[in-house]
Amino acid sequence: MTQVLRTAAELRALPRESLGFVPTMGALHEGHAALLRRSVQENPRTLLSVFVNPTQFGPAEDFSRYPRTFEADLALAEREKVDYLFAPLPEEIYPPGWRTFIEVEKLQEVLCGKYRPGHFRGVATVVHRLFQLVRPHKAYFGQKDLQQCVVLEKMVADLGLPVSIEICPTVREQDGLALSSRNRYLTAEEREQAPVIYRALLAAQEEKEVSLLLARARAMLAQVPAFELQYLEVRSLPNLEEISRVEGRAAIFVAGYFGKTRLIDNRIFKSA
Amino acid sequence: MTQVLRTAAELRALPRESLGFVPTMGALHEGHAALLRRSVQENPRTLLSVFVNPTQFGPAEDFSRYPRTFEADLALAEREKVDYLFAPLPEEIYPPGWRTFIEVEKLQEVLCGKYRPGHFRGVATVVHRLFQLVRPHKAYFGQKDLQQCVVLEKMVADLGLPVSIEICPTVREQDGLALSSRNRYLTAEEREQAPVIYRALLAAQEEKEVSLLLARARAMLAQVPAFELQYLEVRSLPNLEEISRVEGRAAIFVAGYFGKTRLIDNRIFKSA
Repeated sequence: MTQVLRTAAELRALPRESLGFVPTMGALHEGHAALLRRSVQENPRTLLSVFVNPTQFGPAEDFSRYPRTFEADLALAEREKVDYLFAPLPEEIYPPGWRTFIEVEKLQEVLCGKYRPGHFRGVATVVHRLFQLVRPHKAYFGQKDLQQCVVLEKMVADLGLPVSIEICPTVREQDGLALSSRNRYLTAEEREQAPVIYRALLAAQEEKEVSLLLARARAMLAQVPAFELQYLEVRSLPNLEEISRVEGRAAIFVAGYFGKTRLIDNRIFKSA
Repeated sequence: MTQVLRTAAELRALPRESLGFVPTMGALHEGHAALLRRSVQENPRTLLSVFVNPTQFGPAEDFSRYPRTFEADLALAEREKVDYLFAPLPEEIYPPGWRTFIEVEKLQEVLCGKYRPGHFRGVATVVHRLFQLVRPHKAYFGQKDLQQCVVLEKMVADLGLPVSIEICPTVREQDGLALSSRNRYLTAEEREQAPVIYRALLAAQEEKEVSLLLARARAMLAQVPAFELQYLEVRSLPNLEEISRVEGRAAIFVAGYFGKTRLIDNRIFKSA
């Protein structure tokens, strides 16, 4: 049985055991399930949080229509033998008069940050706040949101927070589409076309010269005119700097739209 | 004997005793001495830090000419029986690639924040970092920097930091001038005129109607044309909101220039 908690006070009353933590915005899918399984394996207790964080959505973004599927989320948590599901009201996370925000400069400004100003500030702030409430030993995130992982790793390192960030591989459909809560917005036709994103990332993998590599990936994406590319970039890890050749650790990042549905994906290059 | 520490590693090696902490930018005066005395009284051990924090100065401000008086600071620390003086190199505080900043919205934007954009972000970030390194139980600040105190209290509350912020009364010269490391920049004539700032705060104290109260204080300041007023405002505490009558907790804040020397002061109204 997964115990549902709503308040910071209930969290404080938990036994101080070593805790694995999977923070989510709900609308759980098998990608989240993989994070939960890994946490359950690695920690005596696992806490899943479900909180659609208002501060990481822009004013024109999909905060209000972001999918809320609490009953299904709880069922998945029970299936995965998760100990606690923390589903707070917004005022538990941001008490009235909340004013303190965490920023990770530069990392928050590129890639998705360029198109979603304030997004990573909201992410860093809510994750810092959740860490403060939950006090986990390990926290699990999917590589699908690689920029988020990089921002949070930097925040944890700079602020010396006593938690380890664990990045888990992206879970994909059979045809390569990365699992995402937003995939449910896709029409049947869009869903059929969406794997082009992953094919484009694969097309880029053998090439070291970034200009050539991007040209290959762009050519692949151009085969599906319904996909409106927002950005396609190669950046170093973990500093997200622009590079012209893939040498050290680096990844290719892509974001774009099918209709109003924004999808992102990435792939880390295999080191030489 | 005050033990001088330069590195985070030396801090970590200190015995984990209850620690009082007085963070400063050096150029110590009797206002700092009062903070140190209170910490020495209230804690088994006291740590003074001396660090001129680059991130709280604007590009056109006095970072490079801010007074550095290390020998005199150490002598004052010894006189006050301070246990440790932490005087780090900048790279101890901000390791290469440091990117994480703390912001306290609204509170950082008014009063001094309006004229020194980024200042309180720099203050919040360095104090958070120093708290992380020093791990004090109590930290002492002078009321002279009242907006700084309010910003830091809010940061500590929102982030749930395990430290108590202790605000100590402003120490003044006989003629009322608030002690400040920047007073040493004043010419003899400016020094003679500077107490007008305190007289203006006193002139405001009997009045409840903010418009009348500010008129009185402004009239007093106008007697010294060499003082170039930057702002004179009454704000509520601790939210720093504009008010039209002094009712709950509130303070009058002033900032301005004698030549290139910027001075600030404030006075909290006695509650009814």
